Amino acid sequence: AQMALERDYETQREYDTRYRVLLEAAREAFAFVSVNSGRVIDANSAAAALIGVAREDVIGTIFSQEFEGRRRGEFMQSLSAAAQAESVRPLELNLRRAEQRVLVTPTAFRAAGEQLLLCRIDTAEAAESVADELT
Amino acid sequence: AQMALERDYETQREYDTRYRVLLEAAREAFAFVSVNSGRVIDANSAAAALIGVAREDVIGTIFSQEFEGRRRGEFMQSLSAAAQAESVRPLELNLRRAEQRVLVTPTAFRAAGEQLLLCRIDTAEAAESVADELT
Repeated sequence: AQMALERDYETQREYDTRYRVLLEAAREAFAFVSVNSGRVIDANSAAAALIGVAREDVIGTIFSQEFEGRRRGEFMQSLSAAAQAESVRPLELNLRRAEQRVLVTPTAFRAAGEQLLLCRIDTAEAAESVADELT
Repeated sequence: AQMALERDYETQREYDTRYRVLLEAAREAFAFVSVNSGRVIDANSAAAALIGVAREDVIGTIFSQEFEGRRRGEFMQSLSAAAQAESVRPLELNLRRAEQRVLVTPTAFRAAGEQLLLCRIDTAEAAESVADELT
């Protein structure tokens, strides 16, 4: 059992590495948010740049405080509701520091017993250019 | 030691889940390729759609065979060289099935003792529109 566990452990470590490489290779902005605390548990450089904080300072920030006029409880409820909607329905929000309109698309999931949201953050302009391409 | 290992294991499982959610939430096309075998070990739906294979069939394909006129050894060497270049230098390639020109940007890393490449695949048009935005 110990050996099987160690073998599994090695496999899982590989996902840890793949995860980190993928997160940084993405040019889209991504933030992982804990539903319970409302805090950012991880985010990539693209997200940090968009939010307007240093990469090393983004982890631990209260996600709702990065947006204008959003209170934590209500904000996390809106995100969770959007994540559970049948069709993808991004939230239109204004970033507080950058004073920029963005679309936040949340995906809800559970990992190690904790409810998490993966939020993709698109600038409103980028979202429009994608929409243009699809029409 | 057993308990510490189990605790670590739980943490690593969380990364496994985060990895899968992130890979599918990305609209950019990503493929993980083994340097040794030249085979795709994982890819997202965006990559499968671009390459022109079903999501479930993309894993295990020889990556070089998806591009026109590329032999495995020479192809993997070009990708590795591009990944090790000081500045990011994407490879211009033609997708065989879709007959589409793409830019492949590789990132080299090592996980569980194996050399891997994460390849981001951009359609040439999408890459140009990003370049336009930056100018």
